[in-house]
Amino acid sequence: MAKRLFMFEKPLGMRDTLPFLYEMKKQVRSVMAEEIERWGYEFIETPTLEYYETVGAASAIADHRLFKLLDQQGHTLVLRPDMTAPIARVAASRLYEDGNPLRLAYNANVFRAQQREGGRPAEFEQIGVELIGDGTVAADAEVISLMAALLKRVGLGRFSVAIGHIGYVNALFLEILGNEERASVLRRFLYEKNYVGYREHVKSLPLSSIDQKRLLDLLSLRGGREAIEAAKALASSGEGQQAADEVASLFAALETYGVAEAVKLDMALVSHMSYYTGILFEVYAEQVGFPIGNGGRYDELLAKFSRPAPATGFGLRIDRLIEAVGETDVREEIECIVFSQERLAEAVELAEAKRAEGRRVVLQHIAGIRDIDAYSQRYRSIVYLLGRSGREGQ
Amino acid sequence: MAKRLFMFEKPLGMRDTLPFLYEMKKQVRSVMAEEIERWGYEFIETPTLEYYETVGAASAIADHRLFKLLDQQGHTLVLRPDMTAPIARVAASRLYEDGNPLRLAYNANVFRAQQREGGRPAEFEQIGVELIGDGTVAADAEVISLMAALLKRVGLGRFSVAIGHIGYVNALFLEILGNEERASVLRRFLYEKNYVGYREHVKSLPLSSIDQKRLLDLLSLRGGREAIEAAKALASSGEGQQAADEVASLFAALETYGVAEAVKLDMALVSHMSYYTGILFEVYAEQVGFPIGNGGRYDELLAKFSRPAPATGFGLRIDRLIEAVGETDVREEIECIVFSQERLAEAVELAEAKRAEGRRVVLQHIAGIRDIDAYSQRYRSIVYLLGRSGREGQ
Repeated sequence: MAKRLFMFEKPLGMRDTLPFLYEMKKQVRSVMAEEIERWGYEFIETPTLEYYETVGAASAIADHRLFKLLDQQGHTLVLRPDMTAPIARVAASRLYEDGNPLRLAYNANVFRAQQREGGRPAEFEQIGVELIGDGTVAADAEVISLMAALLKRVGLGRFSVAIGHIGYVNALFLEILGNEERASVLRRFLYEKNYVGYREHVKSLPLSSIDQKRLLDLLSLRGGREAIEAAKALASSGEGQQAADEVASLFAALETYGVAEAVKLDMALVSHMSYYTGILFEVYAEQVGFPIGNGGRYDELLAKFSRPAPATGFGLRIDRLIEAVGETDVREEIECIVFSQERLAEAVELAEAKRAEGRRVVLQHIAGIRDIDAYSQRYRSIVYLLGRSGREGQ
Repeated sequence: MAKRLFMFEKPLGMRDTLPFLYEMKKQVRSVMAEEIERWGYEFIETPTLEYYETVGAASAIADHRLFKLLDQQGHTLVLRPDMTAPIARVAASRLYEDGNPLRLAYNANVFRAQQREGGRPAEFEQIGVELIGDGTVAADAEVISLMAALLKRVGLGRFSVAIGHIGYVNALFLEILGNEERASVLRRFLYEKNYVGYREHVKSLPLSSIDQKRLLDLLSLRGGREAIEAAKALASSGEGQQAADEVASLFAALETYGVAEAVKLDMALVSHMSYYTGILFEVYAEQVGFPIGNGGRYDELLAKFSRPAPATGFGLRIDRLIEAVGETDVREEIECIVFSQERLAEAVELAEAKRAEGRRVVLQHIAGIRDIDAYSQRYRSIVYLLGRSGREGQ
């Protein structure tokens, strides 16, 4: 039997956003939305609830992290765990018609069930874009450059974008391990960023010492452009060469966009989002332990909605972004007019005049105040319009 | 067994918001949020999921309209069906400290399960305010005036605010019917706006013809200030007189605020929100069959969260408001730059310059376009930066 709840309690991982944080989120969100629109992306909204069988199954979030419920028709619904799958659904069914690139954006809360108290939030806000129908590396360069532009716009001075290519990892693993089963074990170590576990597991595999070394060398394919040449030397298959060439071409385009200095290549990067098929990336800020956003190419997701198309995109987490940017004082101060019944007309007129100038003004009947000393602490300034006299207090 | 779903399907009552409608919603929402802030209200956010036992039980929405799910601790969760109860939870636990009035605002989606296809939306966006801790009629006048100001700001020319007082209805029913059971049957007819049913039921009651006539006369207590005098003549108890006096005092304050011309008194008004205790109201636009918003005084809700306080507020529905305002062309046109690989640097530079002027610019690699004739239809203007020559096409 579940414990009895206090009236104040919230479900596990659920949080309130009080006025100060609300203002910060609003500012960050609106600056980013404006920039996204300038790049020609169009925002859409999708429902909070989707069918588990359709969008739920197409999403890349583990089943035990989904919030599920039954509808009255006997179908299982999920609270959307990400926005990429719902946007793929909309694009495939209603928007992606002539095979030409489609640029869509979103700003929405997503939901991932948490196992224990004090853990991560179970509901959090993302803002991001999806570029659907364009398989060129130029499209990958655009979304990464847009993401960097957003971070600069919100004042995040120092961030780094780790970039890898899941096709490269797969090609190398296939070349050396020969089968998908072994590859998936190693990929799991990489996406958990458990490099100690990876090394130990590699050493336990029945491989030549040369092949073991090649698998270990994957972990050192990091840094700038030089990592790409090393990557080409390591994976000799056509697929491996092609993946490395795509990364080279991406890097060159990012130089043109002026964002290459934030890039850290990491050819061992593997995402927890299983739908990625090519270039993928994660973005980090100095002060935050988790990625503040991630993205990549997912060329097979649209086919699940019967409209095959290449696609790429990213999502940024507003909560982690605000942690990275740090507190800034965004609240406009509020003025207050305290009035008594007789002076209502005068008070309304004064408030209207101030509001018309864009100022924030509370209008408060004196009879509604319990403790005027405490109340008056809250506001930047108070005007008293009390009693019949024309006298004004400040 | 549930029917098999197509990949495109959405759960009952769930809707996508495509770019055109998204822009309209964004504009309406931002104009209203700005005005709400000018009146000194502070926005907060609460979680999408709340406990059924706490906030779910405190909300006024019928049980069969709640979306429910079980969490891993065995508690039932609900998707919030309204925002008033969650805000009462936050105010009581974290914000309402010195007994002084607190002005909070919200802009959020709420959820109400629908029974059949083609019905009303099961998820819709509300914007509204809650004024907590102020029991004066001035507080009721403020929230109604703020609601009217919002409707004017979004360009809704003609709307009417029906205002009643649940305390008046209760006092009259108690006076005539003598018990709550009979009163609740009659109240149900009123909140369903089933006046034919009300009349028939009244005629079936074992009452004197004078009392039957008084119950029928309740339905004609409508219109301007004159309805208040008629209301005072009809309900002679102290509670009835006091309720009518509050309505009179509200009406006078609304005249001072300059919004009385939109007011239609309706002393028979009963809301489906069961937590209202005093003045209550619904707002209608000419073109829309349902209220676009409603509100009222709920002086007993905060006590459920262990912090008794009077309170009043309103919520407006964004979807109905947009239906009432009608379509307006809010989309900024998007320009497009189509480039080939050689000209990337030039294209990026041109896009940056245009975006810095606030223009919306898509940057598109020619290799990502399948059908250039179809693609070029989408944009207001296209600049082609193709090949090695310096020539530009338009």
